[in-house]
Amino acid sequence: MSRRRSVSTLGVVGAGAWGTALANAAARAGLKVVLWARDERHVAELVSERVNRRYLPGVTLHDAIVPSSDLAAVAETDALLLVVPAQALRGVVAELAVHLAPGAPLVSCAKGIERGSLAFTTGIIAEAAPAARPAVLSGPSFARDVAAGLPTAVTLAAHDAGLARRLALALASPAFRLYHSSDVAGVEVGGAAKNVLAIAAGIAAGRGLGASAGAALIARGFTELRRLGRALGARPDTLMGLSGLGDLVLTATTPQSRNFAFGHAIGAGEAPPDRLAEGVFTAEALVALAKRYGVDMPIARAVDEVLSRALSVDEAMDTLLARPLKAEADPTGID
Amino acid sequence: MSRRRSVSTLGVVGAGAWGTALANAAARAGLKVVLWARDERHVAELVSERVNRRYLPGVTLHDAIVPSSDLAAVAETDALLLVVPAQALRGVVAELAVHLAPGAPLVSCAKGIERGSLAFTTGIIAEAAPAARPAVLSGPSFARDVAAGLPTAVTLAAHDAGLARRLALALASPAFRLYHSSDVAGVEVGGAAKNVLAIAAGIAAGRGLGASAGAALIARGFTELRRLGRALGARPDTLMGLSGLGDLVLTATTPQSRNFAFGHAIGAGEAPPDRLAEGVFTAEALVALAKRYGVDMPIARAVDEVLSRALSVDEAMDTLLARPLKAEADPTGID
Repeated sequence: MSRRRSVSTLGVVGAGAWGTALANAAARAGLKVVLWARDERHVAELVSERVNRRYLPGVTLHDAIVPSSDLAAVAETDALLLVVPAQALRGVVAELAVHLAPGAPLVSCAKGIERGSLAFTTGIIAEAAPAARPAVLSGPSFARDVAAGLPTAVTLAAHDAGLARRLALALASPAFRLYHSSDVAGVEVGGAAKNVLAIAAGIAAGRGLGASAGAALIARGFTELRRLGRALGARPDTLMGLSGLGDLVLTATTPQSRNFAFGHAIGAGEAPPDRLAEGVFTAEALVALAKRYGVDMPIARAVDEVLSRALSVDEAMDTLLARPLKAEADPTGID
Repeated sequence: MSRRRSVSTLGVVGAGAWGTALANAAARAGLKVVLWARDERHVAELVSERVNRRYLPGVTLHDAIVPSSDLAAVAETDALLLVVPAQALRGVVAELAVHLAPGAPLVSCAKGIERGSLAFTTGIIAEAAPAARPAVLSGPSFARDVAAGLPTAVTLAAHDAGLARRLALALASPAFRLYHSSDVAGVEVGGAAKNVLAIAAGIAAGRGLGASAGAALIARGFTELRRLGRALGARPDTLMGLSGLGDLVLTATTPQSRNFAFGHAIGAGEAPPDRLAEGVFTAEALVALAKRYGVDMPIARAVDEVLSRALSVDEAMDTLLARPLKAEADPTGID
């Protein structure tokens, strides 16, 4: 879209549960939506069945959604939501870039940190599509809740505050509320760190350590998240808002969260789910990023060490529930 | 105890689930404990059965616990935990005061704000027993978890930092971890506000609004809690620690929480549980306190209005999920 034009058509890149739920929410907000998936058979199913049986069964696609496997077609829309896992984002954006008009808004709707580069998703977008304008959408929102039209509130951030505002206005509807912000780093660090912390909470729950221990772990984890956010220049209010604290609470307390469920299986000594949770990929990158900025994140480190089998679950428990608690608000806290 | 003597005997005033769990934790930490209940028949049961069948069935009383209905006997200990509901605390402390040695440490282990006076529990203690030294113990801790020896971490605060430290050291054991602080106001405001916010989260859940809405509500509620805390001179780090955020997360996300369960029943249109949750009593006082300090707490106000039937649950939902969300971090947030 041109720099000031309002948004009336939207591309959604990625037809998983979250992409499909977002496509439906955007259609309810009055936008014409192109929903892209790479797999042509999947697109054919979406076209003929008008339901995403693979990833979001039971939810009818809104009439204003056109499924497509043509990246050029999706690139012609006024703005695009990128609903692709962080580790796969660079490749998709590079493919997409050749089709984009200059200044096209690309809204990252996935959470995480790229391994190796340690880039957040808007950083990946900026590198892979330098002429586009990156933005990020994040907050406490299960795809099922959004698809069901239950009340949900998320934050949309872009360095260009006016762009963030226009995109948020375009996507908002009574049940799907959007707040706009220019604190891109704040929104991204919350989204990335919370998945790793949710694995820690899941491990503790799977180990049967009780809800009290889980809550203490979340409070301590939030301190780590804020510490990293401060180092990255995030605004404290963003971290304490929907995309930070709100999303951490949702992900780290509900069994429906894939990251929590993954940790729970590990803590219980069961085989983890086949589909790996996002936090599994981000844990290592998060720890590396924290190290780069000289930030202490003992809970994230313990999760990474359990995932890489450098630490047993029992050893991790000591780290998760004993060691980090030393650093409670009062620096003279008893061990 | 004299001002510098270490703590070796402990009185626990109130033999409900939490008092009994704390008595057991203190005994495990090596203290000799007098566990007081007013009801002589209840004390006789505790003596003969060595289990608190009424309030914490299935948990054996530690050998170092002596049940008693004699306030003079419990007042002879080195320090006392007061595990009495906030609205009943003044009366009990007044009875106790005549038996206390000057400087006796009285640790409030209940949460709430007294109706009428709008006093927090340490304020009640200071007025009803002026020669005693008030302290407060608070944090994410279900009585069941503490009784079962699951890892739990709480904060103990007193204006006299040395006293807080000595009490925390005396009560701590490997599973029951205590942090000490001199931020009494910070610990108290977190404990009082979270019960009211948990009722709000329960109402939303009972209404079937989904986990995403619940998480957004908790994030917004935490903003209210911080706002009140700031007005009362609480330290931000305390509010973001165990007794603030940690306890809010525990209370507002777990069905075992009485306050959450109470709200859930209201939201679902069911008869609320017979035993009223603490937040029911505190809601009105919290709203009055916020008003006195000129602090906006729309979620607490909505809970109070539902409880006093000034607002229907449906009207409250609009307040809880629409109105307060306008005030997200970015002040230009879209409605």
